[in-house]
Order: sequence, then C-alpha cells, then structure tokens
Amino acid sequence: MTHAQRAAAGVTFPNGFRAGGVSTGIKRSGRPDLGIVLSDLPANAAGVFTTNVVRAAPVEIGERRLRSDASSLLGVLTVSGVANAMTGPEGVSDNEEVLTETERAFDLPRGSLLPACTGVIGPRLPVDRILAALPSLRAGVGAGREHADRAALAMLTTDTRPKEAAVRLRLRSGERVRIGGMAKGSGMIAPQLGPLHATTLGVLTTDAHVDAPDLAAVLEHEVDSTFNMVSVDGDTSTNDTVYLLANGAAGGPNAADDPAFRDGVHAVLESLARQVARDGEGATKLLTVRVHGAHTLTDARRAARAVVSSTLVKAALFGADPNVGRIACAVGYSGAKLDPTRLDVSIPRPHRSIPLIVDGRPADGLDNGGGRRLRDLLRQLDEVPLDVDLNAGRATATAWGCDLSYAYVQINAAYHS
Amino acid sequence: MTHAQRAAAGVTFPNGFRAGGVSTGIKRSGRPDLGIVLSDLPANAAGVFTTNVVRAAPVEIGERRLRSDASSLLGVLTVSGVANAMTGPEGVSDNEEVLTETERAFDLPRGSLLPACTGVIGPRLPVDRILAALPSLRAGVGAGREHADRAALAMLTTDTRPKEAAVRLRLRSGERVRIGGMAKGSGMIAPQLGPLHATTLGVLTTDAHVDAPDLAAVLEHEVDSTFNMVSVDGDTSTNDTVYLLANGAAGGPNAADDPAFRDGVHAVLESLARQVARDGEGATKLLTVRVHGAHTLTDARRAARAVVSSTLVKAALFGADPNVGRIACAVGYSGAKLDPTRLDVSIPRPHRSIPLIVDGRPADGLDNGGGRRLRDLLRQLDEVPLDVDLNAGRATATAWGCDLSYAYVQINAAYHS
Repeated sequence: MTHAQRAAAGVTFPNGFRAGGVSTGIKRSGRPDLGIVLSDLPANAAGVFTTNVVRAAPVEIGERRLRSDASSLLGVLTVSGVANAMTGPEGVSDNEEVLTETERAFDLPRGSLLPACTGVIGPRLPVDRILAALPSLRAGVGAGREHADRAALAMLTTDTRPKEAAVRLRLRSGERVRIGGMAKGSGMIAPQLGPLHATTLGVLTTDAHVDAPDLAAVLEHEVDSTFNMVSVDGDTSTNDTVYLLANGAAGGPNAADDPAFRDGVHAVLESLARQVARDGEGATKLLTVRVHGAHTLTDARRAARAVVSSTLVKAALFGADPNVGRIACAVGYSGAKLDPTRLDVSIPRPHRSIPLIVDGRPADGLDNGGGRRLRDLLRQLDEVPLDVDLNAGRATATAWGCDLSYAYVQINAAYHS
Repeated sequence: MTHAQRAAAGVTFPNGFRAGGVSTGIKRSGRPDLGIVLSDLPANAAGVFTTNVVRAAPVEIGERRLRSDASSLLGVLTVSGVANAMTGPEGVSDNEEVLTETERAFDLPRGSLLPACTGVIGPRLPVDRILAALPSLRAGVGAGREHADRAALAMLTTDTRPKEAAVRLRLRSGERVRIGGMAKGSGMIAPQLGPLHATTLGVLTTDAHVDAPDLAAVLEHEVDSTFNMVSVDGDTSTNDTVYLLANGAAGGPNAADDPAFRDGVHAVLESLARQVARDGEGATKLLTVRVHGAHTLTDARRAARAVVSSTLVKAALFGADPNVGRIACAVGYSGAKLDPTRLDVSIPRPHRSIPLIVDGRPADGLDNGGGRRLRDLLRQLDEVPLDVDLNAGRATATAWGCDLSYAYVQINAAYHS
C-alpha cells in the first residue's frame, strides 16, 4: 500500500455509485438478502468466476453478459440465502427474470445488471418474493456510507460481519481516484476464480477510467494473489464471483498500467480476503502464512496455501498448540521444491521473531519452557502470522486462513436444515 | 474377492512368520509401542513410502535398505509414539542403532530389519528405553494369533482399535498360500505412497514365493487403489510406509502374475484401508464413495477422493444432513471431466438405490418428506455408501473417508500436549 490510503467505506466510496439492500424474507432471520450496487454512468466491468465445473445460474449469466458487452454495465444484483445452483435451465430463466424486472424497476437498459447469488445449493430462487421487494429496494438506494453497508449486509450467509474496504489514490496522470469494495464469504471458501476459487462474492467499484479488457486483466492478476490465496475449508464453491466496475467518473486516461491503480485494487482485494479468512466459519484466529525463498511463484503459493489449508495445522492453532511438525509436514506435501534440512519457520513479532523451525528441525527449547511461552502467546494472538522460508529461491507469496473449531463442525453439521 | 477368502488373523497367518509387541513406556498410557514382525526364512520385500519431501528417518532407512537388497529381509521393527521425523542426522543414527541392537538381540544378520515409526514429529527416539525392552520383546515373540495382535497394537497412536486382515487362496500352480497384514492410521491420513500418502503404516506378510522386483510392482499397483484412496484429514504424513514381505514358505513358482495372488494382496490392503478410514480420528461413520462412468481412471480417482476429502461433505455426514449440493460441488472442483447436467448420485441399498442427485439436480422430494427419511437413514447407518455416476466414460474408482466430528477437533487441538 504505497500509493493508496485506506478509508472506512465500501462500494459507494468512489464517485457515481449508489447501493442498497433489503430483506425479502429468504432468510429465516429476516436479515437483508437482496442487494444492489449501481453506477450512475455506464461502467466498464470485469468478472472472475469459480473454476468449479458445477456452476450456479448467476455465474453462467454473469459470464455471458460480460462476454457480450463489458463496457456499458450499470450494476450488480446480489441474492443471499439461495445459491441458485443445481437448478437447471429454470435456474437461469429465474435469474434472468429477476434481472429483467429489476432493470425495469430501476429504469435501466435490458442486460445492464450482473448477478451474484450465495446460499443453499439446490432450491430455486423465490422469484415472486424478490420481485415484490423491488420497490423498497429502489426506495432505499443511495450514495451514503450507510447504503454501502446495507448492500454489504445483504450478501452475507454464515458470515458474522460485513466486509468492506476502500482506498483513495492519485494516478500518475494527476487524477484522484477511489476504489471501494465489499465481499462475503465464511464457508465453502477456497476460491479459484477464473482463474480464482470459494463461495466468495465480491463487488469492487472505482471511479477510475480503465478500458474493459485491461480491467479484466487487472482483476485476474490481483485476484490471484488475494482471493485465490484464501482457504477456510478447501471447498471451491459453485458460486464464486468477483466483479469490478469502473465508471470513469474521475476522468483521465486509461489507468490500467498505473501501478498506483493496481496497488489500489490489490489493497481492497487483500483487505477483503483477510476479512473473509478472519470470519471463516467458527474461526477464532486469523492465520497469515508468508512464504519466502521459494524457487518459483507457483511453489511459494502452493506452500503457503498448503499450510493455511492443513486440517491438522488449523486444529493445532485452535488449541494454541505449537505443533511445528504439522507445519513442516504441510510444506513437505505442498509440491513446492525444497530441501527439508533448510526449512525455517518463525512467528514474526514487533521486536524479534520467535523461531519455530530452524534448518528443518524444531527450534531449541520448544519442548520445555519455550513451548509453554509459545502456547501462551498463541492463546493471546487474534492473528497468528507465520513466516516460512524455503531457502530455495527468491519467490514469495502470502495465504490467509483460520483455525478449525468446534463451532465449525456445529455450523456445518446442520447448515442445510 | 473372487479367489481368496478372508480369515480372522493378521501378520502371523502365513507360514513362517512370528510377531510380538511390548511397552517401552514411550506412551503415557503404557500401551505397547514397540513391535516386531519376523520371517523365519529370508524374504523378498517391497516398500512404498510417503511422497512428502519432509521424510522421517525410518523412511530414509527403509528405502535405502530395500534399494541395496530386497531379497533377504527378515522383518520389520515398528515404534509408535515418536515419528522420528525432523530429527536430522541424529534421527537416522538413532534408528540405525535401534535396528542394529535389535538384530543382535534376535541373532539376525546386520541390515535384515526394516524400520517404521509413527507419532509426534520432532522428538528424538528414546533409544535407551527401546534397547532396554529388547529382551522382553524377544521373549514374547511367537507365531500365534495373539502375537500378531500384540504387534498390531504396538503400532497404534490415536487409533481406537487394531487393524488386521488376512486371506488364504490357491494359486494357478496349485499351492495354497496365505497373506496377512496389519495397519495403523487414524490422523494425518491422506496417503500418497511412493507413489502413496498418510501416517499410515502397514505391514503385509505372505508365504507365497514372489520375486523381489515383481513384489514391488504388485505392492505399488494395489496400494494405488486402496491406501492411496483413503483420506481422513487430507494431510499426507512424513512417515507413511507399507511393507510387504514374501518368504516363499509355500513353495511354487513366482506368483507375481497370478491374478489370485494380486487379488489377495488387494483384499488385505482394502480391508486395512477401510479399517483406517473407519477409525479416522473422531469418526462416527465410514464414507465409501464409488465413482462410475468416469472418462479416465485418474478422473474417477480424483472425483472419489474429492468427495471423501471435502470438509463440508464430512461435516454434513456427521450431522446426518442430506446436503447433496456439497457432493456435487466437490465432484465439480475435483478436476474430473464431466457434464454437470449428467451427474447422478445415489445411496445403494439392498433393495433399491435412493437417488440424491439426478441429471445434476437434487432428486425430487429431498426438501420435504424424502429429506426427513434420508436424514433418519443417515443417522442409522454406520457406513454410508455413495454411488457417483459421472456418465462420461467407463472408468471406476472407490475412495474411503469418514465424517468430521467435534471429537476430531478435540483430539487435534491438543494431540501434541
């Protein structure tokens, strides 16, 4: 984050975007389940979608709409509580009907909205409920922070909190631009979105001017090092979708190649990715694994993902158990090239790192007093950072995950019911 | 199991094998932790080992001994409670000392025993304790069923029960031969052994005559469709090892190409693999996934393994929740080629199959009365079989796993302590 500053705001932070969310009654809790993000100007848009071959209807529709025209989109309509997956041709026509009626209700051209859904796989969209809620959705749309918050709330499922992020930055060309975003994701999280994966939904907005093909390239590139590096449970969802809308309200030339813009998109995606991992189902701790010294970027990513995805590492983390063998084991089966006798792992701390593994062996003292102190530290930490050095090259990568708790099992043994 | 018959026995079932096990005090519980299997005749031997690049000392030693001479081995020495992994050169010399002293105590030629260890990663082998127990280990060795049982007990860690299997069969050449085996494995189970993976340890014995290179080929081939198709937690261990000793006591020509012999090895490995999955840490149910109609064998194995490995499928199984979307989701991200609209999934039952997914959509009635009946059935079943038909070809594969319970988290949040 060299060129951009974070701000406490979401999708309405950039100029020319409005948002809103209402409850249609899909969720038993009565929480908001229908959300919208609107651009006041036709926007260039990009999307990345799950690589799962079992794809939800909104994924099919979103991809098709972007392929036919990615340069005059006006917004995103989200539904939570129902995934609209495994619903066949009816699922597609249900979702198209909902989009068409929403476009009509908001006086938008046909085909100008992108869809995203998340929730239970199998049931069909409750079209009538959604159509009945459109007048109140329209009445509640606005450009304020609270409107972005409503839209962020309306995409949640088992999430315990909304996820928003925003940055502002100055481009080389002088324009000040803003980027905002929101995401959901708590379970079925191991996104590999086109190329990425989870049910992670994300919507990013910016008032920068970026040409549509370039926008897709920027989104794909930055998603690879952010959303695609998150795992809660290793299950790559049928519905994963991240959209980025650029309405050009800030003016200026195409910002695609401006490092400040790319850094800004990365910062918003990384913040959202961390929030998704932190809010993983049942999670009590965020795990951040930074791999250094990998032979290739692919190796770095494999090793980082293997550690955050390891069921045994996750369970040990929940128990504040400094079981360093499980970390080495996960690195060892990740597929990354390494000499196991050169593996170093530590917990970076403000004043000095705490070594866990040195030259492929448990650090001295872990089995006595040092182990007890480490356990106390792990208990206190809300976020546990691990530095893994493969000493095999110069590539680096970061992955985010969370611990595996009793609550995870409880949530997922009964989610469907 | 066309050519062989199961029998209630383990590694001493074939002629010319003895076994035993004692407690050296490594485990706080005082349970047996040092085991031995001995052949009365020099045996041809084969081994498959973890593909994890972080490999325990006994894996290094076992592989080296088999490479230098696979045709005059006399047994396997197992230690449980300590993995002897991440122990550097000292770990190798510790284990070699233990082997040498055991060979001396049993009057065996130097280099004639193969090692296997399982347990906590990091600590060194308690060499003195082990050496002190050698006289009682020797005194307790015998050829009876109870001796095989002791050896099977002595390899367990978090396992709740020993795992043994045996078959007898008649070869084409007329000889009657026997195959026996034992295994351990409960957590860190996702074996890909050389080529296989887990901490799964297995020792198989047979009195058939099989030449050493052929024995390795048979073991590798049969492990691929049995041990390599088991997942408890997706973590491929540093210690996975399966040995097969053939002492030729039954006489006859080389049985390597005899389908009856191969089927026998498969039957023993499959029985042990199922027992490992059934006894997965915290497991309350065995999950058996049979994939049919895959385009290739690789696709079939990928799809079957993805379903048994899915955290969300496993949690739903624990909750007896017929959440069929999670099954389709796992098949979808497995990498297997399929048309999602042709996916069929059912639970085979003695009288008729219960459809869960038909043509890629949830079977009719799952959301009302059918769902309740299915939930009741899932609650009752100790073993849940799933038939998955990709309708994309003719290849088939079976994988074994288990559910994800509160007990799994409990066991693994505190295993190290």
